[in-house]
Amino acid sequence: MIGKKAPKLVVRADVNITSSKNLTLGHDVSINHGTFLLCEGGLQIGDFVSIAHNTSIITTEHSYSDPDIPIKYQPIQRLPVVIGSNIWIGSRVTILAGVRIANGTIVAAGSVVTKSIEIENTIVGGIPARHIKMRL
Amino acid sequence: MIGKKAPKLVVRADVNITSSKNLTLGHDVSINHGTFLLCEGGLQIGDFVSIAHNTSIITTEHSYSDPDIPIKYQPIQRLPVVIGSNIWIGSRVTILAGVRIANGTIVAAGSVVTKSIEIENTIVGGIPARHIKMRL
Amino acid sequence: MIGKKAPKLVVRADVNITSSKNLTLGHDVSINHGTFLLCEGGLQIGDFVSIAHNTSIITTEHSYSDPDIPIKYQPIQRLPVVIGSNIWIGSRVTILAGVRIANGTIVAAGSVVTKSIEIENTIVGGIPARHIKMRL
Repeated sequence: MIGKKAPKLVVRADVNITSSKNLTLGHDVSINHGTFLLCEGGLQIGDFVSIAHNTSIITTEHSYSDPDIPIKYQPIQRLPVVIGSNIWIGSRVTILAGVRIANGTIVAAGSVVTKSIEIENTIVGGIPARHIKMRL
Repeated sequence: MIGKKAPKLVVRADVNITSSKNLTLGHDVSINHGTFLLCEGGLQIGDFVSIAHNTSIITTEHSYSDPDIPIKYQPIQRLPVVIGSNIWIGSRVTILAGVRIANGTIVAAGSVVTKSIEIENTIVGGIPARHIKMRL
Repeated sequence: MIGKKAPKLVVRADVNITSSKNLTLGHDVSINHGTFLLCEGGLQIGDFVSIAHNTSIITTEHSYSDPDIPIKYQPIQRLPVVIGSNIWIGSRVTILAGVRIANGTIVAAGSVVTKSIEIENTIVGGIPARHIKMRL
Protein backbone atom coordinates (compact mmCIF):
# COMPACT_ATOMS: atom_id res chain seq x y z
CA MET A 1 0.00 0.00 0.00
CA ILE A 2 2.85 2.32 0.81
CA GLY A 3 4.28 1.45 -2.61
CA LYS A 4 1.15 2.58 -4.45
CA LYS A 5 1.26 5.99 -2.89
CA ALA A 6 5.02 6.37 -3.31
CA PRO A 7 6.19 5.92 -6.92
CA LYS A 8 9.69 4.54 -7.48
CA LEU A 9 9.99 3.38 -3.89
CA VAL A 10 12.80 0.87 -3.24
CA VAL A 11 12.85 -0.98 0.08
CA ARG A 12 15.63 -3.52 0.70
CA ALA A 13 15.59 -6.52 3.05
CA ASP A 14 15.47 -6.43 6.83
CA VAL A 15 13.77 -3.07 7.07
CA ASN A 16 11.68 -2.60 10.21
CA ILE A 17 8.80 -0.16 9.97
CA THR A 18 6.50 0.28 12.99
CA SER A 19 3.18 2.17 12.93
CA SER A 20 3.44 2.51 9.16
CA LYS A 21 0.06 4.28 9.12
CA ASN A 22 1.96 7.28 10.50
CA LEU A 23 4.48 7.21 7.65
CA THR A 24 4.17 9.54 4.64
CA LEU A 25 6.51 8.96 1.72
CA GLY A 26 7.20 11.04 -1.39
CA HIS A 27 8.41 9.62 -4.68
CA ASP A 28 11.86 8.23 -5.52
CA VAL A 29 12.63 7.13 -1.97
CA SER A 30 15.05 4.27 -1.28
CA ILE A 31 15.34 2.57 2.09
CA ASN A 32 18.26 0.24 2.47
CA HIS A 33 18.93 -2.94 4.48
CA GLY A 34 18.55 -3.00 8.21
CA THR A 35 16.88 0.38 8.52
CA PHE A 36 14.44 1.07 11.35
CA LEU A 37 11.63 3.55 10.78
CA LEU A 38 9.84 3.79 14.12
CA CYS A 39 6.84 5.88 13.12
CA GLU A 40 4.72 6.00 16.28
CA GLY A 41 5.21 9.75 16.55
CA GLY A 42 4.79 10.44 12.82
CA LEU A 43 7.37 10.35 10.03
CA GLN A 44 7.20 12.36 6.82
CA ILE A 45 9.77 11.74 4.08
CA GLY A 46 9.89 13.90 0.93
CA ASP A 47 10.99 13.12 -2.63
CA PHE A 48 14.36 11.82 -3.86
CA VAL A 49 15.51 10.62 -0.46
CA SER A 50 18.17 7.88 -0.14
CA ILE A 51 18.49 6.17 3.20
CA ALA A 52 21.60 3.98 3.38
CA HIS A 53 21.78 0.74 5.34
CA ASN A 54 21.33 0.38 9.08
CA THR A 55 19.86 3.80 9.63
CA SER A 56 17.32 4.45 12.41
CA ILE A 57 14.67 7.13 12.54
CA ILE A 58 12.99 7.45 15.93
CA THR A 59 9.85 9.48 16.60
CA THR A 60 9.17 8.92 20.28
CA GLU A 61 11.06 9.54 23.47
CA HIS A 62 10.73 8.37 27.03
CA SER A 63 10.03 10.92 29.67
CA TYR A 64 12.48 10.43 32.51
CA SER A 65 11.97 13.25 35.01
CA ASP A 66 9.85 11.41 37.58
CA PRO A 67 12.15 10.07 40.30
CA ASP A 68 9.51 7.66 41.60
CA ILE A 69 8.67 5.71 38.44
CA PRO A 70 11.13 3.51 36.54
CA ILE A 71 12.16 5.27 33.34
CA LYS A 72 10.74 2.47 31.23
CA TYR A 73 7.26 3.02 32.64
CA GLN A 74 7.25 6.82 32.32
CA PRO A 75 5.10 8.31 29.52
CA ILE A 76 6.21 8.25 25.91
CA GLN A 77 6.32 11.57 24.02
CA ARG A 78 5.43 11.60 20.34
CA LEU A 79 7.66 13.95 18.38
CA PRO A 80 7.24 13.82 14.60
CA VAL A 81 10.24 13.72 12.29
CA VAL A 82 10.16 15.54 8.94
CA ILE A 83 12.74 14.65 6.27
CA GLY A 84 12.63 17.08 3.32
CA SER A 85 13.48 16.31 -0.32
CA ASN A 86 16.72 15.58 -2.19
CA ILE A 87 18.41 14.18 0.90
CA TRP A 88 21.08 11.53 1.27
CA ILE A 89 21.26 9.84 4.65
CA GLY A 90 24.44 7.78 5.02
CA SER A 91 24.88 4.37 6.61
CA ARG A 92 24.32 3.80 10.32
CA VAL A 93 22.78 7.19 10.95
CA THR A 94 20.39 7.72 13.86
CA ILE A 95 17.82 10.51 13.65
CA LEU A 96 16.12 11.31 16.94
CA ALA A 97 12.53 12.28 17.66
CA GLY A 98 11.42 15.80 16.78
CA VAL A 99 14.11 16.46 14.18
CA ARG A 100 13.41 18.24 10.85
CA ILE A 101 15.93 17.96 8.03
CA ALA A 102 16.05 20.67 5.35
CA ASN A 103 16.02 19.98 1.61
CA GLY A 104 19.32 19.07 0.00
CA THR A 105 21.05 17.83 3.17
CA ILE A 106 23.67 15.07 3.26
CA VAL A 107 23.98 13.32 6.63
CA ALA A 108 27.38 11.63 6.92
CA ALA A 109 27.65 7.95 7.87
CA GLY A 110 27.48 7.13 11.56
CA SER A 111 25.96 10.45 12.64
CA VAL A 112 23.39 10.94 15.38
CA VAL A 113 21.12 13.83 14.47
CA THR A 114 19.79 15.30 17.71
CA LYS A 115 18.64 18.73 16.45
CA SER A 116 16.92 19.98 13.32
CA ILE A 117 19.01 20.84 10.28
CA GLU A 118 17.48 24.19 9.31
CA ILE A 119 19.70 25.38 6.46
CA GLU A 120 19.29 23.75 3.04
CA ASN A 121 22.09 22.05 1.11
CA THR A 122 24.54 21.40 3.93
CA ILE A 123 26.61 18.37 4.87
CA VAL A 124 26.36 17.41 8.54
CA GLY A 125 28.07 14.68 10.53
CA GLY A 126 29.26 13.38 13.89
CA ILE A 127 27.70 12.68 17.27
CA PRO A 128 25.84 14.92 17.73
CA ALA A 129 25.65 15.88 14.05
CA ARG A 130 27.10 19.33 13.32
CA HIS A 131 27.57 21.43 10.21
CA ILE A 132 30.60 20.21 8.21
CA LYS A 133 30.30 22.28 5.04
CA MET A 134 27.92 23.52 2.38
CA ARG A 135 27.03 20.90 -0.23
CA LEU A 136 27.06 23.27 -3.21
CA MET B 1 15.18 -20.64 30.97
CA ILE B 2 16.37 -17.05 31.19
CA GLY B 3 12.71 -16.04 31.04
CA LYS B 4 11.78 -18.06 34.11
CA LYS B 5 14.39 -16.35 36.21
CA ALA B 6 13.63 -12.89 34.82
CA PRO B 7 9.96 -11.88 35.23
CA LYS B 8 8.51 -9.49 32.65
CA LEU B 9 11.39 -10.03 30.28
CA VAL B 10 10.76 -8.89 26.69
CA VAL B 11 13.19 -9.99 23.97
CA ARG B 12 12.54 -8.88 20.38
CA ALA B 13 13.67 -10.55 17.16
CA ASP B 14 17.24 -10.85 15.90
CA VAL B 15 18.83 -10.68 19.33
CA ASN B 16 22.18 -12.46 19.55
CA ILE B 17 23.20 -13.73 22.98
CA THR B 18 26.44 -15.69 23.32
CA SER B 19 27.48 -17.62 26.47
CA SER B 20 24.06 -16.99 27.97
CA LYS B 21 25.07 -19.04 31.03
CA ASN B 22 27.16 -16.00 32.00
CA LEU B 23 24.16 -13.65 31.76
CA THR B 24 22.21 -12.57 34.86
CA LEU B 25 18.98 -10.65 34.35
CA GLY B 26 16.75 -8.81 36.81
CA HIS B 27 13.01 -8.26 36.29
CA ASP B 28 11.33 -5.91 33.82
CA VAL B 29 14.13 -6.02 31.30
CA SER B 30 13.47 -5.39 27.60
CA ILE B 31 15.97 -6.19 24.87
CA ASN B 32 15.14 -4.85 21.45
CA HIS B 33 15.81 -5.96 17.86
CA GLY B 34 19.32 -6.59 16.66
CA THR B 35 20.98 -6.37 20.04
CA PHE B 36 24.17 -8.33 20.73
CA LEU B 37 24.88 -9.49 24.27
CA LEU B 38 28.29 -11.14 24.10
CA CYS B 39 28.47 -12.64 27.58
CA GLU B 40 31.73 -14.62 27.53
CA GLY B 41 33.22 -12.33 30.17
CA GLY B 42 30.05 -12.12 32.30
CA LEU B 43 27.10 -9.75 32.01
CA GLN B 44 24.83 -8.70 34.87
CA ILE B 45 21.73 -6.60 34.13
CA GLY B 46 19.56 -5.22 36.94
CA ASP B 47 15.82 -4.43 37.09
CA PHE B 48 13.80 -2.07 34.87
CA VAL B 49 16.38 -1.89 32.12
CA SER B 50 15.38 -0.96 28.54
CA ILE B 51 17.85 -1.76 25.81
CA ALA B 52 16.86 -0.15 22.49
CA HIS B 53 17.53 -1.72 19.10
CA ASN B 54 20.94 -2.54 17.67
CA THR B 55 22.82 -2.16 20.92
CA SER B 56 25.96 -4.22 21.63
CA ILE B 57 27.36 -5.20 25.00
CA ILE B 58 30.83 -6.71 24.84
CA THR B 59 32.56 -8.47 27.73
CA THR B 60 35.88 -9.57 26.26
CA GLU B 61 38.82 -7.82 24.69
CA HIS B 62 41.77 -8.91 22.60
CA SER B 63 45.20 -8.42 24.01
CA TYR B 64 47.36 -6.72 21.39
CA SER B 65 50.72 -5.92 22.96
CA ASP B 66 52.75 -8.83 21.59
CA PRO B 67 54.48 -7.67 18.40
CA ASP B 68 55.21 -11.25 17.27
CA ILE B 69 51.69 -12.72 17.30
CA PRO B 70 48.85 -11.56 15.06
CA ILE B 71 46.35 -9.59 17.14
CA LYS B 72 43.61 -12.07 16.35
CA TYR B 73 45.56 -14.91 17.98
CA GLN B 74 46.59 -13.01 21.10
CA PRO B 75 44.79 -13.97 24.33
CA ILE B 76 41.27 -12.83 25.10
CA GLN B 77 40.66 -10.97 28.37
CA ARG B 78 37.36 -11.48 30.16
CA LEU B 79 36.08 -8.25 31.68
CA PRO B 80 32.56 -8.45 33.13
CA VAL B 81 29.99 -5.74 32.48
CA VAL B 82 27.52 -4.70 35.17
CA ILE B 83 24.40 -2.74 34.22
CA GLY B 84 22.52 -1.43 37.27
CA SER B 85 18.76 -0.84 37.57
CA ASN B 86 16.36 1.72 36.11
CA ILE B 87 18.52 2.29 33.07
CA TRP B 88 17.60 3.27 29.52
CA ILE B 89 20.12 2.37 26.86
CA GLY B 90 19.36 4.09 23.54
CA SER B 91 19.57 2.68 20.05
CA ARG B 92 22.89 1.67 18.51
CA VAL B 93 24.85 1.96 21.74
CA THR B 94 28.05 -0.04 22.23
CA ILE B 95 29.16 -0.87 25.78
CA LEU B 96 32.72 -2.15 26.02
CA ALA B 97 34.19 -4.83 28.26
CA GLY B 98 34.74 -3.99 31.93
CA VAL B 99 32.20 -1.17 32.10
CA ARG B 100 29.83 -0.67 35.06
CA ILE B 101 26.78 1.56 34.66
CA ALA B 102 25.21 3.17 37.74
CA ASN B 103 21.50 3.06 38.56
CA GLY B 104 19.26 5.57 36.84
CA THR B 105 21.56 6.23 33.88
CA ILE B 106 20.35 7.14 30.39
CA VAL B 107 22.82 6.32 27.61
CA ALA B 108 22.07 8.41 24.50
CA ALA B 109 21.65 6.76 21.10
CA GLY B 110 24.81 5.97 19.19
CA SER B 111 27.15 6.22 22.17
CA VAL B 112 30.20 4.06 22.79
CA VAL B 113 30.66 3.58 26.54
CA THR B 114 34.34 2.96 27.16
CA LYS B 115 34.53 3.75 30.90
CA SER B 116 32.27 3.07 33.86
CA ILE B 117 29.46 5.49 34.66
CA GLU B 118 29.93 5.87 38.41
CA ILE B 119 27.41 8.59 39.33
CA GLU B 120 23.72 7.65 39.47
CA ASN B 121 20.98 9.37 37.47
CA THR B 122 23.05 10.98 34.76
CA ILE B 123 22.61 11.21 31.00
CA VAL B 124 25.71 10.28 29.03
CA GLY B 125 26.39 10.29 25.29
CA GLY B 126 28.91 10.45 22.46
CA ILE B 127 32.01 8.54 21.42
CA PRO B 128 33.46 8.00 23.93
CA ALA B 129 30.39 8.56 26.13
CA ARG B 130 30.74 11.57 28.42
CA HIS B 131 28.52 13.20 31.02
CA ILE B 132 25.84 15.38 29.33
CA LYS B 133 23.66 16.33 32.28
CA MET B 134 21.92 15.04 35.39
CA ARG B 135 18.70 13.15 34.68
CA LEU B 136 16.75 14.54 37.65
CA MET C 1 34.78 -19.72 -4.07
CA ILE C 2 36.02 -16.91 -1.85
CA GLY C 3 36.71 -19.56 0.79
CA LYS C 4 38.98 -21.58 -1.51
CA LYS C 5 41.19 -18.61 -2.19
CA ALA C 6 41.22 -17.44 1.43
CA PRO C 7 42.44 -20.13 3.85
CA LYS C 8 41.07 -20.03 7.41
CA LEU C 9 38.29 -17.64 6.45
CA VAL C 10 35.45 -17.39 8.96
CA VAL C 11 32.22 -15.67 7.93
CA ARG C 12 29.35 -15.45 10.44
CA ALA C 13 25.62 -15.09 9.73
CA ASP C 14 23.89 -12.08 8.22
CA VAL C 15 26.92 -10.83 6.35
CA ASN C 16 26.07 -8.82 3.22
CA ILE C 17 28.68 -8.81 0.47
CA THR C 18 27.90 -6.98 -2.77
CA SER C 19 30.00 -7.25 -5.96
CA SER C 20 32.08 -10.00 -4.37
CA LYS C 21 34.07 -10.33 -7.59
CA ASN C 22 35.76 -7.08 -6.53
CA LEU C 23 36.75 -8.51 -3.13
CA THR C 24 40.27 -9.86 -2.48
CA LEU C 25 40.87 -11.64 0.80
CA GLY C 26 44.09 -12.84 2.45
CA HIS C 27 44.29 -15.74 4.87
CA ASP C 28 43.03 -15.89 8.46
CA VAL C 29 40.27 -13.35 7.95
CA SER C 30 37.15 -13.37 10.12
CA ILE C 31 34.01 -11.44 9.27
CA ASN C 32 31.41 -11.28 12.00
CA HIS C 33 27.61 -11.02 12.10
CA GLY C 34 25.80 -8.23 10.34
CA THR C 35 28.80 -6.88 8.48
CA PHE C 36 28.35 -5.13 5.12
CA LEU C 37 31.14 -5.32 2.57
CA LEU C 38 29.97 -3.18 -0.34
CA CYS C 39 32.66 -3.99 -2.89
CA GLU C 40 31.51 -2.15 -6.03
CA GLY C 41 34.56 0.11 -5.89
CA GLY C 42 37.02 -2.68 -4.96
CA LEU C 43 37.95 -4.04 -1.53
CA GLN C 44 41.26 -5.66 -0.65
CA ILE C 45 41.71 -7.24 2.78
CA GLY C 46 45.10 -8.63 3.89
CA ASP C 47 46.00 -11.47 6.28
CA PHE C 48 45.03 -11.91 9.93
CA VAL C 49 42.19 -9.42 9.84
CA SER C 50 39.32 -9.58 12.36
CA ILE C 51 36.18 -7.67 11.55
CA ALA C 52 33.78 -7.53 14.52
CA HIS C 53 30.01 -7.53 14.18
CA ASN C 54 27.95 -4.88 12.40
CA THR C 55 30.84 -3.25 10.62
CA SER C 56 30.38 -1.60 7.20
CA ILE C 57 32.99 -1.10 4.53
CA ILE C 58 31.86 1.17 1.69
CA THR C 59 33.73 1.61 -1.59
CA THR C 60 31.53 4.01 -3.54
CA GLU C 61 30.30 7.53 -2.99
CA HIS C 62 27.61 9.67 -4.53
CA SER C 63 28.63 12.80 -6.31
CA TYR C 64 26.53 15.68 -5.05
CA SER C 65 27.82 18.87 -6.60
CA ASP C 66 25.26 19.27 -9.40
CA PRO C 67 22.48 21.58 -8.17
CA ASP C 68 20.11 20.48 -10.94
CA ILE C 69 20.05 16.70 -10.42
CA PRO C 70 18.75 14.98 -7.30
CA ILE C 71 21.69 13.64 -5.29
CA LYS C 72 20.47 10.09 -5.66
CA TYR C 73 20.72 10.27 -9.45
CA GLN C 74 24.15 11.91 -9.58
CA PRO C 75 27.07 9.66 -10.65
CA ILE C 76 28.63 7.13 -8.31
CA GLN C 77 32.38 7.32 -7.73
CA ARG C 78 34.32 4.10 -7.21
CA LEU C 79 37.00 4.49 -4.57
CA PRO C 80 38.76 1.27 -3.56
CA VAL C 81 39.41 0.43 0.08
CA VAL C 82 42.60 -1.37 1.12
CA ILE C 83 42.79 -3.03 4.54
CA GLY C 84 46.32 -4.20 5.36
CA SER C 85 47.31 -7.17 7.52
CA ASN C 86 47.15 -7.91 11.27
CA ILE C 87 44.24 -5.55 11.79
CA TRP C 88 41.42 -5.64 14.32
CA ILE C 89 38.30 -3.72 13.35
CA GLY C 90 35.91 -3.35 16.32
CA SER C 91 32.14 -3.63 16.35
CA ARG C 92 29.93 -1.15 14.51
CA VAL C 93 32.77 0.50 12.62
CA THR C 94 32.12 2.23 9.29
CA ILE C 95 34.98 2.56 6.81
CA LEU C 96 34.30 4.98 3.98
CA ALA C 97 35.26 4.79 0.31
CA GLY C 98 38.88 5.44 -0.62
CA VAL C 99 40.36 4.64 2.80
CA ARG C 100 43.59 2.64 3.25
CA ILE C 101 44.39 1.13 6.64
CA ALA C 102 48.01 0.38 7.56
CA ASN C 103 49.21 -2.95 8.96
CA GLY C 104 48.79 -3.52 12.67
CA THR C 105 45.96 -1.02 13.17
CA ILE C 106 43.20 -1.40 15.75
CA VAL C 107 40.01 0.51 14.92
CA ALA C 108 37.95 1.09 18.08
CA ALA C 109 34.27 0.12 18.21
CA GLY C 110 31.80 2.59 16.76
CA SER C 111 34.36 4.56 14.74
CA VAL C 112 33.78 6.08 11.33
CA VAL C 113 37.03 6.00 9.35
CA THR C 114 36.91 8.85 6.85
CA LYS C 115 40.64 9.16 6.03
CA SER C 116 43.46 6.69 5.48
CA ILE C 117 45.41 5.42 8.48
CA GLU C 118 48.97 5.76 7.21
CA ILE C 119 51.09 4.88 10.24
CA GLU C 120 51.38 1.20 11.21
CA ASN C 121 50.47 -0.20 14.62
CA THR C 122 48.25 2.57 15.91
CA ILE C 123 44.90 2.54 17.67
CA VAL C 124 42.32 4.89 16.17
CA GLY C 125 38.76 5.73 17.20
CA GLY C 126 35.86 8.15 17.16
CA ILE C 127 33.82 9.96 14.51
CA PRO C 128 35.79 10.79 12.46
CA ALA C 129 38.42 8.26 13.58
CA ARG C 130 41.55 9.90 14.98
CA HIS C 131 44.83 8.62 16.41
CA ILE C 132 44.36 7.49 20.04
CA LYS C 133 47.72 5.89 20.78
CA MET C 134 50.38 3.55 19.46
CA ARG C 135 49.49 -0.11 19.77
CA LEU C 136 52.98 -1.31 20.73
